[in-house]
Amino acid sequence: MKLWEGRFEKPISPDADAFNESLSFDKRLYKADITASIAHATMLGKCEIIPEADAEAITEGLKGILADIKAGSLAVEGAEDIHSFVENELVSRIGETGKKLHTARSRNDQVATDLRLYARESIDRMIALIKDLIEALLRLSREGKGILPGFTHLRKAQPLSLAQYFNAYCEMFLRDLERFDDCRKRVNVMPLGSAALAGTSYPIDRTMTQRLLGFGDISQNAVDAVSDRDFVAEYLFCASLTMVHLSRLCEDTILYTSEEFGYWVIPDEYSTGSSIMPQKKNPDLPELVRGKSGRVFGHLMGMLTVLKGLPLAYNKDLQEDKEAFFDAEDTLSSCLSIYTALLSKLTFNFEAMFEAAGGGFSTATDVADYLAKKGIPFRDAHAATGKLVRYCIAKGKTLDRLTLEEFRAVNPAFEKDVLAAVTTRASVEARNSVGGSSQDASRHGIASIKRRLKKY
Amino acid sequence: MKLWEGRFEKPISPDADAFNESLSFDKRLYKADITASIAHATMLGKCEIIPEADAEAITEGLKGILADIKAGSLAVEGAEDIHSFVENELVSRIGETGKKLHTARSRNDQVATDLRLYARESIDRMIALIKDLIEALLRLSREGKGILPGFTHLRKAQPLSLAQYFNAYCEMFLRDLERFDDCRKRVNVMPLGSAALAGTSYPIDRTMTQRLLGFGDISQNAVDAVSDRDFVAEYLFCASLTMVHLSRLCEDTILYTSEEFGYWVIPDEYSTGSSIMPQKKNPDLPELVRGKSGRVFGHLMGMLTVLKGLPLAYNKDLQEDKEAFFDAEDTLSSCLSIYTALLSKLTFNFEAMFEAAGGGFSTATDVADYLAKKGIPFRDAHAATGKLVRYCIAKGKTLDRLTLEEFRAVNPAFEKDVLAAVTTRASVEARNSVGGSSQDASRHGIASIKRRLKKY
Amino acid sequence: MKLWEGRFEKPISPDADAFNESLSFDKRLYKADITASIAHATMLGKCEIIPEADAEAITEGLKGILADIKAGSLAVEGAEDIHSFVENELVSRIGETGKKLHTARSRNDQVATDLRLYARESIDRMIALIKDLIEALLRLSREGKGILPGFTHLRKAQPLSLAQYFNAYCEMFLRDLERFDDCRKRVNVMPLGSAALAGTSYPIDRTMTQRLLGFGDISQNAVDAVSDRDFVAEYLFCASLTMVHLSRLCEDTILYTSEEFGYWVIPDEYSTGSSIMPQKKNPDLPELVRGKSGRVFGHLMGMLTVLKGLPLAYNKDLQEDKEAFFDAEDTLSSCLSIYTALLSKLTFNFEAMFEAAGGGFSTATDVADYLAKKGIPFRDAHAATGKLVRYCIAKGKTLDRLTLEEFRAVNPAFEKDVLAAVTTRASVEARNSVGGSSQDASRHGIASIKRRLKKY
Amino acid sequence: MKLWEGRFEKPISPDADAFNESLSFDKRLYKADITASIAHATMLGKCEIIPEADAEAITEGLKGILADIKAGSLAVEGAEDIHSFVENELVSRIGETGKKLHTARSRNDQVATDLRLYARESIDRMIALIKDLIEALLRLSREGKGILPGFTHLRKAQPLSLAQYFNAYCEMFLRDLERFDDCRKRVNVMPLGSAALAGTSYPIDRTMTQRLLGFGDISQNAVDAVSDRDFVAEYLFCASLTMVHLSRLCEDTILYTSEEFGYWVIPDEYSTGSSIMPQKKNPDLPELVRGKSGRVFGHLMGMLTVLKGLPLAYNKDLQEDKEAFFDAEDTLSSCLSIYTALLSKLTFNFEAMFEAAGGGFSTATDVADYLAKKGIPFRDAHAATGKLVRYCIAKGKTLDRLTLEEFRAVNPAFEKDVLAAVTTRASVEARNSVGGSSQDASRHGIASIKRRLKKY
Repeated sequence: MKLWEGRFEKPISPDADAFNESLSFDKRLYKADITASIAHATMLGKCEIIPEADAEAITEGLKGILADIKAGSLAVEGAEDIHSFVENELVSRIGETGKKLHTARSRNDQVATDLRLYARESIDRMIALIKDLIEALLRLSREGKGILPGFTHLRKAQPLSLAQYFNAYCEMFLRDLERFDDCRKRVNVMPLGSAALAGTSYPIDRTMTQRLLGFGDISQNAVDAVSDRDFVAEYLFCASLTMVHLSRLCEDTILYTSEEFGYWVIPDEYSTGSSIMPQKKNPDLPELVRGKSGRVFGHLMGMLTVLKGLPLAYNKDLQEDKEAFFDAEDTLSSCLSIYTALLSKLTFNFEAMFEAAGGGFSTATDVADYLAKKGIPFRDAHAATGKLVRYCIAKGKTLDRLTLEEFRAVNPAFEKDVLAAVTTRASVEARNSVGGSSQDASRHGIASIKRRLKKY
Repeated sequence: MKLWEGRFEKPISPDADAFNESLSFDKRLYKADITASIAHATMLGKCEIIPEADAEAITEGLKGILADIKAGSLAVEGAEDIHSFVENELVSRIGETGKKLHTARSRNDQVATDLRLYARESIDRMIALIKDLIEALLRLSREGKGILPGFTHLRKAQPLSLAQYFNAYCEMFLRDLERFDDCRKRVNVMPLGSAALAGTSYPIDRTMTQRLLGFGDISQNAVDAVSDRDFVAEYLFCASLTMVHLSRLCEDTILYTSEEFGYWVIPDEYSTGSSIMPQKKNPDLPELVRGKSGRVFGHLMGMLTVLKGLPLAYNKDLQEDKEAFFDAEDTLSSCLSIYTALLSKLTFNFEAMFEAAGGGFSTATDVADYLAKKGIPFRDAHAATGKLVRYCIAKGKTLDRLTLEEFRAVNPAFEKDVLAAVTTRASVEARNSVGGSSQDASRHGIASIKRRLKKY
Repeated sequence: MKLWEGRFEKPISPDADAFNESLSFDKRLYKADITASIAHATMLGKCEIIPEADAEAITEGLKGILADIKAGSLAVEGAEDIHSFVENELVSRIGETGKKLHTARSRNDQVATDLRLYARESIDRMIALIKDLIEALLRLSREGKGILPGFTHLRKAQPLSLAQYFNAYCEMFLRDLERFDDCRKRVNVMPLGSAALAGTSYPIDRTMTQRLLGFGDISQNAVDAVSDRDFVAEYLFCASLTMVHLSRLCEDTILYTSEEFGYWVIPDEYSTGSSIMPQKKNPDLPELVRGKSGRVFGHLMGMLTVLKGLPLAYNKDLQEDKEAFFDAEDTLSSCLSIYTALLSKLTFNFEAMFEAAGGGFSTATDVADYLAKKGIPFRDAHAATGKLVRYCIAKGKTLDRLTLEEFRAVNPAFEKDVLAAVTTRASVEARNSVGGSSQDASRHGIASIKRRLKKY
Repeated sequence: MKLWEGRFEKPISPDADAFNESLSFDKRLYKADITASIAHATMLGKCEIIPEADAEAITEGLKGILADIKAGSLAVEGAEDIHSFVENELVSRIGETGKKLHTARSRNDQVATDLRLYARESIDRMIALIKDLIEALLRLSREGKGILPGFTHLRKAQPLSLAQYFNAYCEMFLRDLERFDDCRKRVNVMPLGSAALAGTSYPIDRTMTQRLLGFGDISQNAVDAVSDRDFVAEYLFCASLTMVHLSRLCEDTILYTSEEFGYWVIPDEYSTGSSIMPQKKNPDLPELVRGKSGRVFGHLMGMLTVLKGLPLAYNKDLQEDKEAFFDAEDTLSSCLSIYTALLSKLTFNFEAMFEAAGGGFSTATDVADYLAKKGIPFRDAHAATGKLVRYCIAKGKTLDRLTLEEFRAVNPAFEKDVLAAVTTRASVEARNSVGGSSQDASRHGIASIKRRLKKY
């Protein structure tokens, strides 16, 4: 039975019905829908909009439905949407009284409330998963005493401590936590009581329902409340940026576990092979996660397109909010989980990393800084070092194998201590500014991350 | 059993396996996969790469699997992907011989071939559905002898014949046919025989397989063949533009069936109501179709993101091609079908349309043209007519109710025949240029559409 | 002169130089760049990394450059980017000492700092412009005592007060303020001192620079700090959602100012005409603003694409952040300004709105609510009202013209007071829940908006 | 002077005028606009819609304007759009007669015609630039006798000939040529004569104008013709896919020129350095090109968003077509040019490539194929080779250094000739299927590319 048949002379045609239905995907909202209905019925009873006894009967009926769905004994099917399903089921269980549930509300405010309840839980899940990932990264920061090359433009730039490297990803995911948390504030506003778009003439108590559902606030405008899907777009954006960060970590993982780099090893259990090439051990998981960023961006773009140019207030186009949301949620949560697992199994080839970190004249900046500290203007120190690098290339040498004479041939300001300044380890330790690569700075970085992580 | 376990000491962990699997969605390719394998096995036999008897056993085995899946007696589950599923099932049916099927191919060229076979069929389905839609529109063009207002900027511009109006949409969808057909050329190229990325050392006959599978051409470079998903992006683009056209038709439908316009009527069977507002009859179908454009755009954007910056050749990111493709296909086909159905039930309020067509001084251009034909430069004729319109607004009159004196007060070049020139019907008939609004031009338009439609 | 030539044997070729340059657009950062350099030099001096006298000379030199660019007497041209331009100019003004400015920093942290300084100001500008728009909307809310139809699915749903209607948009733009403000927190973090990617070996005092530049915090990880462009993506997302809201207001404006609706009037000064159709008065401005939403979405999508899959740390791809940012900023600010201006000139056709608000059986919910309040389960009340609507359609009547007998023929629970309950004004006033349409609720809505607006 | 002022009592306000203007960017269409106007005027004269003498005066006037703009002696400024600019200038040059030019056309069909003329030329330019790029790639294919590792999942898969590798990119860009060429068909249709949206009442000869402008066809429906921007979206899609291909080539370039791979060398003239790290030589150009893919995708997404849900026919939103188009065009053409230049300077480290090609057990497939050809089912051959690889890893050996005994320990089917089969060169030459890696197959690939290239 449709909730709206009264005005129609002919029933909806089967193809239109099939096209229009949303139960196949909005059934995921069943808990949110029933929870919101229980709160709504309770309030209707307390406010004497319906008899308290009716409210109790409805509440009991709804609890039974919820329990049965959870237990798997009630299949969610055979209705237009989750709201109709629950209401039909309620009426079939408790009779006519069930029909009073829909007093003082509309599906417009109901679905907005359901989706916000669902999104709130989803954000909490994502926050927990991102925290797990940060903790996995922090473990690598703490354990990894090593040094690896730092790249810019995928060219060796300066050596980094492994801790500083993994801390960088912690910082990105901390921002994701912060953004999801900001989004949660805006999700956690209750539209229920907005009815179709104009509010309701019943003497409802929205604050009571708010308290029952744990919302932080209630919406202040009914027209806006039923047509607002900003929070879905914002969720998709937060998910998109988190996927960006994952995709960067994937890229690094793929590179660093390649034969050419050889810094990290993904264990067999998190690798796959080839059906034709017997030697292959492929980084399928990072590749898939990287690829899945596109999917989440696509959902964001889709949602913005849906919203663009919609007249007020509710339009059916908004039904397109759910599948994008659910798929983004599933994608993000599985990517976060699998990466946390993969990181926990990752092993390091410390020697190869250290060796590589010293390559590519990665301490040239230290040479230039050395000169600058002797009073040579930085620009000139930079140029002199450039010359040294060209000399090394021509001679097939590295900076740490130059003699003092060779240094001085380029600039007489070089003294003996330059030979110690150009080692990989010295270079890492020298960068002791806040956020720098030294062990000390990295430890401070870890402490700072932990402190901020506690908020969530 | 994985197709690639030999080199690994530990099996894949269950979470990685679940994340990596694609059978849950690529099972849709089962027919394509088996069809391609039959062709491949046949060729292997004919070329004596494997014994002909083995080829026949494989072929028979595969046919049985195909029949069983179609009949529903073989569930497609329990493997990493559709390729592994079919091969495992084959081996379990015909024994060791089945293991020879994968000779001289890789999953890389196999999946590319499967997806192209599938996409080719999908394009044919889309072309058929677009043709149906055009025919439904043509029916409205032919039957609709009426006149409706033509809008620019959603302001009445000039009256149109209903035929010209619906022909406009036929033109858009004809371009979609053309684009899908162009895309089909590029889809219809066989990668099979490219193996992993470098081709194969077996003396295969790719032309034989091509003929067996009805491909128009074979790929000329193995590296490209296994890493090319241009055709998926192009399919998604064709689908996106078709959705753009549908979304425009939806917008018109929503407007023209509103109380404010009142030109068209969607019957009850293709409308829905409100759970709270008993009077509502809502155009849910056009709204949903309009909204679903965002989803298809999103898939296109997602696919472009996946492809961006991938190194050669195959990378696992490409596995993300399928779900986007399948969902776009389902979305587009259901939108096309439902709209064809809806159009076939659409009825017109001819009087309201005609009445509206005459409003908004929609024949002002005819007045300006009238003057211009009398030798007044068009710019001046335009300005004079602007003045007449302001006069009408001030007096609460319409152009077709002005007296000759009123016309002449603005410009003495007006003569008696202007009174006939400013009627709605005269205006429509006057525009007799190719593609214009006159009955004659509209009939030519219909004939031209039909002629072009025959190509598909 | 390039800042990096030392190591190179051949100069960059002219085409590569032209492709690589960014001065043509990053010159917009000149003020941010010089401001940051002044703070950096001051800190270098105070920390005795360079002599204080040098720091002062640099500072004076930079102030002179800033003044000259502002005054228009120094053309920003002839260098690779704004950083090189300023440094070259400085050296040409104060000589060798100028070369010391780049001590303990890299263009990587410099450009990130510049862009954040610029973005912070830009957010402040956007917040001011959004506030102006909200105030323009609030004026309409306050002045508009009228009633207009509330739509769902572009079908009359329930009558609304004009105040409730405009308040709805205030709520949307308030959320935009909140989002931009949240984004500002993340923008307002100083990367300066991160140097190339690993921090610096100079004893810099990042907190001093932070204070001088008014940043809320300093970045905690150098690798992240130089490669993070999250804040650009977040800015673009905030801008995109604001454009969504504008596009919805545009759609309503276009509809409500059409001949078919006729609720609002855009004055001549904010309309345009047609080169051929003399009668046309087109809503070009709302159309353009609506269209420009696409442009901003596109920049967001572009930025996410740029970031996807980039390895750590800085890569030149990130140079693509600026033009998207600047164009989004220009687009959003001009759209906000023009709409604020347009709204201030908008006039209302109160009668037409009121008349329309009563059409479409828009008080049917009141009839259903009436019955429900008499104890009829809402579902049955809804069905009975549906029947009444069908009766009205058949008889060509409206709900407020039905007799008591006609009401009672459908359900005997109707009594005399139903006749008063079904008027437009009664319907609006009945919806007195928080956020509802009644005058009282709307006044509360305005007060709440004003209160929240004060925060910004 | 506006072309539409007659009907308005008040002039447009300056801020609205500034927001609305398009001359600042559509001036790029000046040649197209004047060319189309010359053809239109000529036709008006020949058809005696205006006196032939007037047509000649107009034509002469327009030619003068075109010449003056080209010569730089006439600044394109001071009007609403390029159409108004040209018409105003014409009237100021030849007087009242100039006002007759706009007879039987509207800006709606005029701008659509201009943009198509411009797009046609732009496509021809892009096709020429893509051809140049393919030729640069072909040069590398021909000259590069070398062998490099073929990667899948960024893991060494099988050795490739350099020719096969570069041919792969030729194939991608050939598809881009084909797509641009298909798009050109749809661009090359003339809307002129459609007037505002309904056609015109003047006895125009559209075929004559078509011939004068070299269009392949004329539009068959005026309503569609003025509101169709499919061709812009299609152009942007073609550009997006071309950017995808460039971005993949960039990724390969960045990887292959890194210290870790070391296969290719970008010369100094196409590299840049760092302001702080004296040793750096960065691949800025490939990074920038890779990044710019996002920008073009963004324009595509923006355009689809603009088109979504627009009611028929022309709406001002469509003005947003141009800047996206122009920026995509500039971006694509500069990326194509710079990459063609860069490729022409690229040098190879043949030894390093060859060395690397033999690494990673890249001939394992040859081992498996060897066994399969001895009659071992491929699946078992694959497993046996996997075991050999594990043995090699454990022993620190490579496949080409195993003794026959070691081979036979795993499977007795191995015979002496296996030792020759597992060399890098043998592996490359063995893959002789169409599109394979052998020299022969690569030569055929080059010939096929050249043949297809000739079409454009």
